[in-house]
Amino acid sequence: MKSRFLLVLIVSCFCSTLSWSQKVISPVINADHSVTFSVYAPKATQVELGGEPVNFHSVDMKKGSGGVWSYTASPLRSDFYLYFFRIDGVYSIDPSNTYMVRDANDIYNYVILPGDRGDLYIPQDVPHGTVSRVWYDTPVLGTQRRMSIYTPAGYETSGKEYPVLYLLHGQGGDEDAWLVMGRAAQILDNLIAQKKIEPMIVVMPYGATQHQAIPGEAGNEGMYRPKFDGAYNTTFEAHFVDILSHVEKNYRTIKAPEGRAIAGLSMGGEHTFQIALNNPGTFDYVGLFSSCAHIREINGKEMFPELYMNTEAKLAKQFEANPKLYYIAIGDKDPLYQMNVDLRKLFDSHGWKYVYVESTGGHTWYNWRVYLADFVSRIFKR
Amino acid sequence: MKSRFLLVLIVSCFCSTLSWSQKVISPVINADHSVTFSVYAPKATQVELGGEPVNFHSVDMKKGSGGVWSYTASPLRSDFYLYFFRIDGVYSIDPSNTYMVRDANDIYNYVILPGDRGDLYIPQDVPHGTVSRVWYDTPVLGTQRRMSIYTPAGYETSGKEYPVLYLLHGQGGDEDAWLVMGRAAQILDNLIAQKKIEPMIVVMPYGATQHQAIPGEAGNEGMYRPKFDGAYNTTFEAHFVDILSHVEKNYRTIKAPEGRAIAGLSMGGEHTFQIALNNPGTFDYVGLFSSCAHIREINGKEMFPELYMNTEAKLAKQFEANPKLYYIAIGDKDPLYQMNVDLRKLFDSHGWKYVYVESTGGHTWYNWRVYLADFVSRIFKR
Repeated sequence: MKSRFLLVLIVSCFCSTLSWSQKVISPVINADHSVTFSVYAPKATQVELGGEPVNFHSVDMKKGSGGVWSYTASPLRSDFYLYFFRIDGVYSIDPSNTYMVRDANDIYNYVILPGDRGDLYIPQDVPHGTVSRVWYDTPVLGTQRRMSIYTPAGYETSGKEYPVLYLLHGQGGDEDAWLVMGRAAQILDNLIAQKKIEPMIVVMPYGATQHQAIPGEAGNEGMYRPKFDGAYNTTFEAHFVDILSHVEKNYRTIKAPEGRAIAGLSMGGEHTFQIALNNPGTFDYVGLFSSCAHIREINGKEMFPELYMNTEAKLAKQFEANPKLYYIAIGDKDPLYQMNVDLRKLFDSHGWKYVYVESTGGHTWYNWRVYLADFVSRIFKR
Repeated sequence: MKSRFLLVLIVSCFCSTLSWSQKVISPVINADHSVTFSVYAPKATQVELGGEPVNFHSVDMKKGSGGVWSYTASPLRSDFYLYFFRIDGVYSIDPSNTYMVRDANDIYNYVILPGDRGDLYIPQDVPHGTVSRVWYDTPVLGTQRRMSIYTPAGYETSGKEYPVLYLLHGQGGDEDAWLVMGRAAQILDNLIAQKKIEPMIVVMPYGATQHQAIPGEAGNEGMYRPKFDGAYNTTFEAHFVDILSHVEKNYRTIKAPEGRAIAGLSMGGEHTFQIALNNPGTFDYVGLFSSCAHIREINGKEMFPELYMNTEAKLAKQFEANPKLYYIAIGDKDPLYQMNVDLRKLFDSHGWKYVYVESTGGHTWYNWRVYLADFVSRIFKR
């Protein structure tokens, strides 16, 4: 009988990667937490490694025996790292690494170093929540759209009502971004299991309203390719009411300010900022992660209709409702740093309370994952 | 203000693919349904195209102007095609194509040609079902595992009970396989919208019980790499009762044979065959797609304990329950063809009724997607 199984094995595996390349193991996490990246490219004249393990630069890899090029990145702290190769000028994945993410049109491999932060991003043997891709109707936009929804372990059978975090991505992202690059499901699973946070629902919509869903899942445009523009307008904020009502109608949620949080990064921070101030008394918890925040009236007629006007008066109304937490986090090298300085000045001048977290580094997922873990540990406490 | 937006754009797009390679558009579907694949590889001495558009062979691409290599595959029928490049011996994705799938450790790009079959695999602007990644406890295996569950559009609010199809993948696959390569959600959405099939729940578990979930989501082994073995044993069949009971406890299902179907491809066909005959009267609809089917007692002590024994007597009992449909489909060039001839001979000798579909071609997703669309159009009819 073994031959039959071998046959199945062969035919199922009809065009395996391994038959095309040498059996290189990459990446390898070494004992000192340096990481060795390798790729078999016998005819190449130059192979580069790019991405986060080399601080967003690119470095030349070295050709070793058997046509295998390697580079060992100096010891890295425990974290999640995106990387890629460039082989004789051609963008390339690491053919030995199963782990990849798509960010808009870009594909990256990744490696997670266990230990400290990384352990929060690695699935552990704890109860896991459900992640669903859920469609909702939006009368405001006259279409249907999709969002990702995390419900914590036990949701299906507990009969309880849960608080909800609306978690928004940046420009270029989509309803997968917080799950794949943000590791939101793993962070939530792990922190809930450690009893560091309250079990909560996390709703991750798609911030670019010209698209219904990620590439290959959107009904209105078939197999589209994301473009890195057009996402930045007020239609997301305007249609947010449809997301909120879908969630509160279809999930067992706490339908009160103390059961609602909203947070976002970069463009999603702007979305958060605007949605919160245009809906005073809706959210008791607001989080801006490396956020855009347009605090002055701007040339609204062209780019932003009235939704973005009268910011200061709206903020005053929002703070009259006395939210439990207004959270502002940014890295000291973030290009949006000054914008957040200005925002805090405005808040200070009015005596509006907020929690400020300044981390090192820039406009990166390193920071956003940490802000998420920190933010969720501060909300919905009973 | 525009400069601020530009800034956000730049920082969010910190290491875009496009900055690394020329702006090549690939693949391009031409008017005659030939498809041109291109890649910028100025220093390469050989670039090959592999995969389904070239019948699982590899062909040399041609170097054109500007360092761009191209190949035009002769007109292809409307379908879903997996492909990849090999650049100077290195397995490579198409850096211009957003669309990829992971099959165990292998990454492929894909292209869908619209028109006939392809339209069924492309998301259309129809109501969409929800796809969830759901964890279940399995007392039989003493662990927790994950499955993908499709609920049809309207499930959340209809209050109705639905029939359930249990849909099993082949060796090397996982709980993503039917969704990403099988396009199951698109097929179901589109056929339901066309009123060609009944709305149904589709449950897609992970057939390799040594793993809890796809790479990067499994709690018991962190960031594992799938191996193409170890999946073929009877533990999946033995623990199937836990899947069934989780689904029937947590979803609004028709808890009777007429509300249950089971189907699978290759190894998943064997799982289907065995689960159906070891649980007579449970399923009114059984589908074997390019299936393994061990109809004789085999050297059970080594490989298969009693679950796989006494096949003929068990089948007799199964057919006493008078299932509404036993469906056997296979391609005329499938390496498992003879095994299915033997199976049909056995069925014929006993007068057990089945529907037989023989298509052209081999052990491929081309066929499995078609079998799925055909099978679901024959089940749960009222």
